[in-house]
Amino acid sequence: MQFDSYTSRVNKKLESYLSVQNSLAEPMRYSVLAGGKRFRPILAYCVASLFNTDLEKIDSSACAVELIHAYSLIHDDLPAMDDDDIRHNQPACHKRFNEAQAILAGDGLQALAFEVLVKDSLLTDHIKIELLSSLTHAAFEMAEGQSIDLSIVEKKVDVSVLENMHRKKTGALLSCAVNLGAIVAQCSENDRSILQAFAQAIGLAYQIQDDVLDVEAPEGILGKNQHSDIDKNKPTYPSVIGLEASKKAYQALYVKASKELELLSVNAHSLQQLIAKLQSRKF
Amino acid sequence: MQFDSYTSRVNKKLESYLSVQNSLAEPMRYSVLAGGKRFRPILAYCVASLFNTDLEKIDSSACAVELIHAYSLIHDDLPAMDDDDIRHNQPACHKRFNEAQAILAGDGLQALAFEVLVKDSLLTDHIKIELLSSLTHAAFEMAEGQSIDLSIVEKKVDVSVLENMHRKKTGALLSCAVNLGAIVAQCSENDRSILQAFAQAIGLAYQIQDDVLDVEAPEGILGKNQHSDIDKNKPTYPSVIGLEASKKAYQALYVKASKELELLSVNAHSLQQLIAKLQSRKF
Repeated sequence: MQFDSYTSRVNKKLESYLSVQNSLAEPMRYSVLAGGKRFRPILAYCVASLFNTDLEKIDSSACAVELIHAYSLIHDDLPAMDDDDIRHNQPACHKRFNEAQAILAGDGLQALAFEVLVKDSLLTDHIKIELLSSLTHAAFEMAEGQSIDLSIVEKKVDVSVLENMHRKKTGALLSCAVNLGAIVAQCSENDRSILQAFAQAIGLAYQIQDDVLDVEAPEGILGKNQHSDIDKNKPTYPSVIGLEASKKAYQALYVKASKELELLSVNAHSLQQLIAKLQSRKF
Repeated sequence: MQFDSYTSRVNKKLESYLSVQNSLAEPMRYSVLAGGKRFRPILAYCVASLFNTDLEKIDSSACAVELIHAYSLIHDDLPAMDDDDIRHNQPACHKRFNEAQAILAGDGLQALAFEVLVKDSLLTDHIKIELLSSLTHAAFEMAEGQSIDLSIVEKKVDVSVLENMHRKKTGALLSCAVNLGAIVAQCSENDRSILQAFAQAIGLAYQIQDDVLDVEAPEGILGKNQHSDIDKNKPTYPSVIGLEASKKAYQALYVKASKELELLSVNAHSLQQLIAKLQSRKF
């Protein structure tokens, strides 16, 4: 299946970017290569492929966006942050190594993510700057989103606060993955804004669905501790608007995303398949 | 004095980059605008000025390198790292706010540093990519250096291990500051390699001198806790090669740096003055 080929492609590339020996290599490799759905790289590959872009040209973007995601998970899991001990069914980075190494591995991965784009010899400087503009902005918003997330623990918030937090914490990087694909593909402005609307819809849908799965998924399937949001008294979509309304909300957003794709100048069959796959995911 | 004008120039620019309201603005502003010697920006401005470069073109580099430095101090001060409570004569970021906000403020500052370069409208894409190549690499080496630093606590190491750690932890970003100035100035390859040799010499000299000042500076003058290296059982130049040999070592490196500058195709009076200022610093 196409998505699996993208996953194994990005895994190989990540492996090669992380093969350089240095004092942070072990915790960085441990966290990045432990697994993960590689949803962001898949998005970037899918979008670029719609426009028949050479996949080699999107490898650096796929890796960069995953490296940023991986660094954010390491830092989010720290005791001072979400204090999660399990990630991808194994001890979190700070449990396997220590907190200092986890902080530094995250810091190193952020620098590496940008370096991977900067050093790509297949792209023009102009395209690299466009990619970096999108990724630096998304990385900043992601950190901001996490800070909003922590600031609303144990607070009563309305759904607009929750939505703004999710748009930054998760949505920014998902949108960026789509954006990177569109930049490398050099598609039209019109297609780009359609893809952005698609990305925003699935970004929010994905997060609401995560909130729902945190309540409903069978024990052990998430690869991390379940009910972690509830245990931490974090407001979630189910806690703010109710479980059924949350399910309806994310399903409606997936439908919206699918409709957006129909407006593209090209056939978006692979992205439609991706939506279907996301809708039915259990973790 | 010229250095003071560079300091106030970079402070104004940093203030403007940090004036955008967001949930991380407060801890970021607190840490970046609290002060600091602005040694890295001064280096970048001095180098660019040697070649009559318009200072406006070096502002983004001066800020970017200082933002990376500021983020590294926030993370280094964390309890899991060096556990320092005082920075720039005020509570460290994690003491004034909390650990989570400090981690995220550091993360945000790293992303912002790269974004500042990416968004500079006065530079060509080609020059921006050259600058980003240098800064992403230095940022990574700096994180690596800190991880080596933590790994040798309470260990007996020889001077080559110490030198390698310092070259990464402090030297990489100092060299980068010089490098950014040289890139924007578009000076000759020959001048660039001379400047690199100069930067490596002062980078190591500066760190050895820091180790000496940590032992010898009068109480209260450092703006951070004194004897902190000794208290943490960190190997330092004085502990490995002795206090007098350390003093001789850094003085010899400043002399070496000064001699390198004589080889430049331009008059390097300002950098010679900077060396003199560094040699006589008391904190």
